[in-house]
Amino acid sequence: MESKQVPIGVSARHIHLSKEHIAILFGDGAELSVLKELSQPGQFAANETVEVVGPKGSFPKVRILGPARGKTQIEISRTDAFSIGVPAPVRESGNIAGSPGVTVKGPKGEVVLEEGVIVAARHIHFHTSDAAKWGIANGDLLRVRVNGERPLVFEDVVARVSDSFALDMHIDTDEANSAGCKTGDAGEILS
Amino acid sequence: MESKQVPIGVSARHIHLSKEHIAILFGDGAELSVLKELSQPGQFAANETVEVVGPKGSFPKVRILGPARGKTQIEISRTDAFSIGVPAPVRESGNIAGSPGVTVKGPKGEVVLEEGVIVAARHIHFHTSDAAKWGIANGDLLRVRVNGERPLVFEDVVARVSDSFALDMHIDTDEANSAGCKTGDAGEILS
Repeated sequence: MESKQVPIGVSARHIHLSKEHIAILFGDGAELSVLKELSQPGQFAANETVEVVGPKGSFPKVRILGPARGKTQIEISRTDAFSIGVPAPVRESGNIAGSPGVTVKGPKGEVVLEEGVIVAARHIHFHTSDAAKWGIANGDLLRVRVNGERPLVFEDVVARVSDSFALDMHIDTDEANSAGCKTGDAGEILS
Repeated sequence: MESKQVPIGVSARHIHLSKEHIAILFGDGAELSVLKELSQPGQFAANETVEVVGPKGSFPKVRILGPARGKTQIEISRTDAFSIGVPAPVRESGNIAGSPGVTVKGPKGEVVLEEGVIVAARHIHFHTSDAAKWGIANGDLLRVRVNGERPLVFEDVVARVSDSFALDMHIDTDEANSAGCKTGDAGEILS
């Protein structure tokens, strides 16, 4: 049977901002500008960054990923979470209810978030055609072997399937470092 | 068959010092004092700490683990390595030849190391009797499942067997964070 190889994308800490928060942080009418297109169609790393301040420390330059979203969300690693003192839970993107907040500072203003800081659950974006070919359904939990410098098998890798996705496995920096892999390496779906 | 359960110990960044370096950093005749006994017989976390300085940053309080060793060795995570700009290789403890150096500062002096900074390869300490019972030999590479918040299977876990060891699996903070586990949790040896 064909090996189910998936390219790996390592997510460093980043933030998605709502339109309302972009206006507060960067000024009325401000828009994000594109630094680099990302693997998912329409998504981009912006030139703009913000400071993220927690009770024990801060990250002075956190990259904004665009375009604007309905709700502001910050994705950090567990190492980051300890570093700034924010007990971020492991969650799927978009599921921020009850997660801790943090203060976000931009050049024109700041926002005190009530919630929105998560550690993103590892996941694979599948285009509908990839998922169909491999018999994978949205929400499946997969096992993926990464044969890097420190080989391991990630379990509970969430399958996310959409016509608007491109095939890519997203893990955070803790996960990449413990596997000894980097963006552009490949993982193999075992089951 | 009996499940091969192993307690997990998460190693934060730490340093082992030679006698010569203890004298330079803390003064002639200085000795390490015991803060806490560790899982391995005779090993301890010292009250004393040092600053570790790399080209891109520093860690102001790195815990010393005693007793003194033949050679000074610093064990950091890959996240730490990026943070201070030191390209530490994944190595077994004691194998520091050709690894990068760093500057170590104590209250009485400093040492510029030519080598000694590694990312410790994940490993399990087995007492000889544990290893015999489970048919494991020194140097075996094992697969260990950790069923934490983010389940995964670590591969290439090095078996280290000695009469002077107590059963314990040592992983670093990146590995613990990506598994969602902590010291005192258990792993299961699969093969």
